[in-house]
Amino acid sequence: MRSEFDLIKRYLTGLGSARDDVICGVGDDAAIVTPSADATLLLALDTLVDGVHFPTDCPAESVGYRALAVNLSDIAAMGGRPCWALVGLTLPAVDEAWVAGFARGLDWLARAHDVAVVGGDVTRGPLTISVQITGSCAAPPLRRDGARVGDELWVSGRPGEASAGLEAWQAGERSSSRWQGLRNAFLAPQPRVLLGQALCGVASAAIDVSDGLLADAGHIGSASGVALHITGSRLQPSARLQAWAGPAQAQTAYLAGGDDYELCFTAPPAARRQVMAAARAARTPVRCIGAVRAGEGLYLDGQALAANKFAGYEHFGS
Amino acid sequence: MRSEFDLIKRYLTGLGSARDDVICGVGDDAAIVTPSADATLLLALDTLVDGVHFPTDCPAESVGYRALAVNLSDIAAMGGRPCWALVGLTLPAVDEAWVAGFARGLDWLARAHDVAVVGGDVTRGPLTISVQITGSCAAPPLRRDGARVGDELWVSGRPGEASAGLEAWQAGERSSSRWQGLRNAFLAPQPRVLLGQALCGVASAAIDVSDGLLADAGHIGSASGVALHITGSRLQPSARLQAWAGPAQAQTAYLAGGDDYELCFTAPPAARRQVMAAARAARTPVRCIGAVRAGEGLYLDGQALAANKFAGYEHFGS
Repeated sequence: MRSEFDLIKRYLTGLGSARDDVICGVGDDAAIVTPSADATLLLALDTLVDGVHFPTDCPAESVGYRALAVNLSDIAAMGGRPCWALVGLTLPAVDEAWVAGFARGLDWLARAHDVAVVGGDVTRGPLTISVQITGSCAAPPLRRDGARVGDELWVSGRPGEASAGLEAWQAGERSSSRWQGLRNAFLAPQPRVLLGQALCGVASAAIDVSDGLLADAGHIGSASGVALHITGSRLQPSARLQAWAGPAQAQTAYLAGGDDYELCFTAPPAARRQVMAAARAARTPVRCIGAVRAGEGLYLDGQALAANKFAGYEHFGS
Repeated sequence: MRSEFDLIKRYLTGLGSARDDVICGVGDDAAIVTPSADATLLLALDTLVDGVHFPTDCPAESVGYRALAVNLSDIAAMGGRPCWALVGLTLPAVDEAWVAGFARGLDWLARAHDVAVVGGDVTRGPLTISVQITGSCAAPPLRRDGARVGDELWVSGRPGEASAGLEAWQAGERSSSRWQGLRNAFLAPQPRVLLGQALCGVASAAIDVSDGLLADAGHIGSASGVALHITGSRLQPSARLQAWAGPAQAQTAYLAGGDDYELCFTAPPAARRQVMAAARAARTPVRCIGAVRAGEGLYLDGQALAANKFAGYEHFGS
């Protein structure tokens, strides 16, 4: 049940005034606004809730890191450069050690991406973190609705590892070196900021993979009014994902696991060399997994996937 | 105990990179950033928590209204013009009637101030709302640290009414016309956006009164390195506040009640006519309640107020 998205669409769409300086409002990874003739800004906000978006025993450093990472990923999916962050931290009690760890994790990632944390709010209540990020964009931002028939469908990195890493964490695998890569994929995902920037002007559409590859690819398809055909033999779950989950479950995690924060994007076949150059420049692996065709919906090796097959990841607490 | 502010200052100050385009980071009502040579933007984020910042039986319309109002007030205190809002809504369950009411209250206020709601996030969890606002500013923004010895101290509107209105609401006074004005001061405070804009270039310092007049005036004093001397006879609790609370408690509410979202500001005596003109233009009453002198701390009729006298409103749930 994607009730949260239904709510957004029905009640939080179109609120307030229609302003001329809003290029894109609710409905993409970030809003696009133009404060002046020579500035295009991207605005995003994401909330993480204890026990819903991370396990209660998640290290504070990881909570701080991830609270920013999910927002950087929104800017990455638009091809932007993150600039300024605001942090809304709601805490049940004053736990200085926890807050210090939270701040360390957030600070580390902010510095890595040249982001300044310029303000926010600390309140008392159930543990909840909302981070807002403002980014800039030189070229026209990447959007979800630009996929065209004939384009190829791509994904970055190693989808499915984050959900397996969360499984490993929850199964008590907290220190073994064997599953460290998977754990890190959940605890400290790498937002694909450089890749997004490099794909600006190259990709025709992009989205970040937060709810699972099929769910998020589906948003590109529906926003663009096209069908997406995925080729099963092109999906390549990583060796460690297969070692953890077994081959069949690894493919399920690859297609439907959440929290990866990879980029899923489309580009014309003629841009294939530019896509590969962008991936090299960003030092991020990318893989062509399918094609954009006329129609609607998602297909795996020619078989239509039922809507509930790619309804999206509802986080582990659901 | 102002533990929340200690936490902000100690752990959430100076996080991330020091960027040249950040004019003012953590420590004022909003951050000031300059995305391009001809754009100055204000960024603020505030969180409201069920049972902490509003009673659980607060009407949904009021929750939506207030979630935006507290952010508009931050922009008002900087003299800015609010433009775009993001809404992070965390809900325990899908309650369509509640969300519809929340959206109505927020939409009404957003339209009244020409603000576009351009995105956000809806998640499952304990009821918490984080709203982020981006504003623009033509003149240099008003800050907390500009009060100078010799300036006069001013406050807008009717401080203390919001805390009395909350008391009335909690005492079961939910429909009587006698207390409607007080109830509305809490349920639907008017952010002083026009006044803040009109005071830009006139006032020397400003802050919004969210934690109580003394507490917030104290922030101007400490940020500016000056003492603030308040004249008791100049404080004028409204007739309805006095009717509700009695004369003595009315003065306490005036000085220490929270959630007013009035503006407290300083200006040189020579600017008195401009201050009055700004108030007329904004159709908002203002009152001179004291003076800025050398030294530090807050004084009422020459008596130093102990730090805990103006430690600030910690919301009714504390």
